[in-house]
Amino acid sequence: MIKYTSVSDLVNPQRAALEALSLKASDQLVSKATDGKVLCLLFFNNSLRTRLSTELAGIKLGMKVMVMQIGENGWALEFEDGVRMDSTKAEHIKEAAAVVSQYADVIGIRSFPTLTDKEADLSDRVNSAFVRYASVPVFSMEGAVEHPLQALADAMTILENKGLNRPKVVLSWAPHPRALPHAVANSFILMMQRQEVDFCITHPKGYELNPSVVGNSQVVYDQDEAMANADFVYVKNWSQFEPYGATKSGLDHWMVTPEKLGNAKFMHCLPIRRNVIASDLVLDSEQSLVLEQANNRTFSAAYIIKKLLESKGV
Amino acid sequence: MIKYTSVSDLVNPQRAALEALSLKASDQLVSKATDGKVLCLLFFNNSLRTRLSTELAGIKLGMKVMVMQIGENGWALEFEDGVRMDSTKAEHIKEAAAVVSQYADVIGIRSFPTLTDKEADLSDRVNSAFVRYASVPVFSMEGAVEHPLQALADAMTILENKGLNRPKVVLSWAPHPRALPHAVANSFILMMQRQEVDFCITHPKGYELNPSVVGNSQVVYDQDEAMANADFVYVKNWSQFEPYGATKSGLDHWMVTPEKLGNAKFMHCLPIRRNVIASDLVLDSEQSLVLEQANNRTFSAAYIIKKLLESKGV
Amino acid sequence: MIKYTSVSDLVNPQRAALEALSLKASDQLVSKATDGKVLCLLFFNNSLRTRLSTELAGIKLGMKVMVMQIGENGWALEFEDGVRMDSTKAEHIKEAAAVVSQYADVIGIRSFPTLTDKEADLSDRVNSAFVRYASVPVFSMEGAVEHPLQALADAMTILENKGLNRPKVVLSWAPHPRALPHAVANSFILMMQRQEVDFCITHPKGYELNPSVVGNSQVVYDQDEAMANADFVYVKNWSQFEPYGATKSGLDHWMVTPEKLGNAKFMHCLPIRRNVIASDLVLDSEQSLVLEQANNRTFSAAYIIKKLLESKGV
Repeated sequence: MIKYTSVSDLVNPQRAALEALSLKASDQLVSKATDGKVLCLLFFNNSLRTRLSTELAGIKLGMKVMVMQIGENGWALEFEDGVRMDSTKAEHIKEAAAVVSQYADVIGIRSFPTLTDKEADLSDRVNSAFVRYASVPVFSMEGAVEHPLQALADAMTILENKGLNRPKVVLSWAPHPRALPHAVANSFILMMQRQEVDFCITHPKGYELNPSVVGNSQVVYDQDEAMANADFVYVKNWSQFEPYGATKSGLDHWMVTPEKLGNAKFMHCLPIRRNVIASDLVLDSEQSLVLEQANNRTFSAAYIIKKLLESKGV
Repeated sequence: MIKYTSVSDLVNPQRAALEALSLKASDQLVSKATDGKVLCLLFFNNSLRTRLSTELAGIKLGMKVMVMQIGENGWALEFEDGVRMDSTKAEHIKEAAAVVSQYADVIGIRSFPTLTDKEADLSDRVNSAFVRYASVPVFSMEGAVEHPLQALADAMTILENKGLNRPKVVLSWAPHPRALPHAVANSFILMMQRQEVDFCITHPKGYELNPSVVGNSQVVYDQDEAMANADFVYVKNWSQFEPYGATKSGLDHWMVTPEKLGNAKFMHCLPIRRNVIASDLVLDSEQSLVLEQANNRTFSAAYIIKKLLESKGV
Repeated sequence: MIKYTSVSDLVNPQRAALEALSLKASDQLVSKATDGKVLCLLFFNNSLRTRLSTELAGIKLGMKVMVMQIGENGWALEFEDGVRMDSTKAEHIKEAAAVVSQYADVIGIRSFPTLTDKEADLSDRVNSAFVRYASVPVFSMEGAVEHPLQALADAMTILENKGLNRPKVVLSWAPHPRALPHAVANSFILMMQRQEVDFCITHPKGYELNPSVVGNSQVVYDQDEAMANADFVYVKNWSQFEPYGATKSGLDHWMVTPEKLGNAKFMHCLPIRRNVIASDLVLDSEQSLVLEQANNRTFSAAYIIKKLLESKGV
């Protein structure tokens, strides 16, 4: 199935980032593969940036965009096979995905993890079911495990801002008052593992991410040591993977400050809590790339949608 | 008033189904009557299939589509004349319909019945008021009494799948955990009464539909007898008409199985509860037409919208 | 900054109303400045008329329109500088406005006042912050202090319906069961002060509006005296400015009737509560201009959006 629900779907992530930057530089994004085609965006969870940037990607490609806010309560889907559907779930994913894919040429889906049902989350249930039952290409606008459009935009932003040398890129955990998903961190790790960068991850003990994602990537528990001489520092909160969805207190000192950042560029996927994740001085400095990352979301989406419609591997 | 809020509005339902199939077969749905025109879809109740298929119909016709989720609580309308509006209802239907019709060339409306206020439901209050006060054509995307776009899609599906002989079509009640409206059943009955089919209805005693809809159609209380030698079995739950909105328990055996279905094609408007309305074996068999019905919704909507904009009777 | 969040932003309100009427009379609203451009409409509060008329304005201008219902709870923004964002507010307006403006060529915003936090309301917090941090033009679809698109549509409606003589225009308070904002009244006053009309305001004692808005405009506490020989009577409820957001009871006799109206034309921004604000006889008479006002909303919006995109002062 032609899809983009994981950075792993990219055959060549370096080429993808380069080609997405070419698309961004182009005056004309409309092509025969996209002109007049129908893009359907299904939101099982709220979204601002992803909604607007992906809709704009469709517009720039000459597509017609249908946006559907399904909401957290609005449309309870059954995912299990063979169940007697006599409770609150009004429709099985088999029919839902098959029907929606009759109305569109490509489907984007946003669906957050539960952070309580680890098994369901790890199966990326909603995306996986749409991929299985839809008859058109499907891409993720952030799923239970990954946020692959964000990671492609991030790779583009690093490419645009790096110097001539191989850059050092650090992913740092940062504090947050709520328990957050792992999707952004997971996709960023999978992307950096396949780019021409020196990469390491830093977080407090206990915040280890899924080992099958981290793989051989270096983990440094001392934030200062990890960030020393970094060119790019990507900051993000996530909850614990073990116990699943848990959080710890007393870690406010992991907030990123100008002192910690040094000369590195600062990256974050937004929305960001000022003076919790990073201080005002960081966000208001010229070292911050957060707006450029958000802008690149439009073009990472446009690139992926175009590739999917050309029936090529992404 | 040119409108489509009931199957009864169709001058010739057989010709309508044939012409809608021609439209479906056409490469080019855009016509002078529809190109660049504005379609406004107002949802007083939630919708997935109807929303996407009707928006897609507008797109295929070259129209601009404005979709408005009004919600169940969002916009309380007054329908009574002469009332002092000092409670929760902020706007009278007179102004609402007249204003919205200044912003669009044609208006589609979804509004469910209360299933408690029989008189209000039978008057199809929301659709009727829009028809009365709007200055442009109005069509129903399922009202309190009928779902006429669904019935036209169903007639198209039967035409596409019937053999050379006059088919036997059965409408069968089926179990459901909630009390559901009569709209789909009503419109299907009114449509079948005017197609070249042998038609009968089967349901448990107590589930008699509105006599003014059923008319002379045959009702058989034995489901097996009714379904014998059927070519098409349309399955649907509905609540009782008398007492209005009531339900009975102990009727799970009305679920449709391969044994009951025999060689007939299986039809349902979706969403469907698997292993309650019909078993997995029925839905996953090649006898199921549910996806074709859903696909035909796009073209039944396109046909009706086009006819309304051509200022002809539907 | 090029913006339209207040009638005061209009360099020449008389010319604006005339030019907006020319645009309305034109067959072709698409221009090079607007064709294919992206209009983003952000709704922090619900809307029917404003939503549809502004979306339609974008469509008529040849634009692509992205509509975002942010809702009252959906997206809690921080407006204060230097705050540690560790409570419920997930994003600072600095990032939100800067990001959204990367996705659009012009942004429209609807945001109601609190009617409890006077200082926040008077600063027109949401609009002001977007104007400050967005990189593209911003206009108000009703803010905490003004509803300037409505006032421009109202001026157009008066121009279309006045005779050869300088008309007498009266703004009259009317009863309502809830405490309502001042925005419509404020913008209408600021508009009438700069049109070729004789203008006065009438309301019960205690309902004095913001003195900095009322300025030198005449206030008459006797409704009959104020309305005598009026050509246009604009009726609207508002809550007290002092104490802020308060209401008084026992004022039902301020409802407008045919006797009070005399030969004047009747105006209201809608939605209107029949037999509370004005009687059925007034609303159903030929003296009512409410539908024409609503229709002119499309063209006041189109005029403003076009001007903003031409990078000229409005």
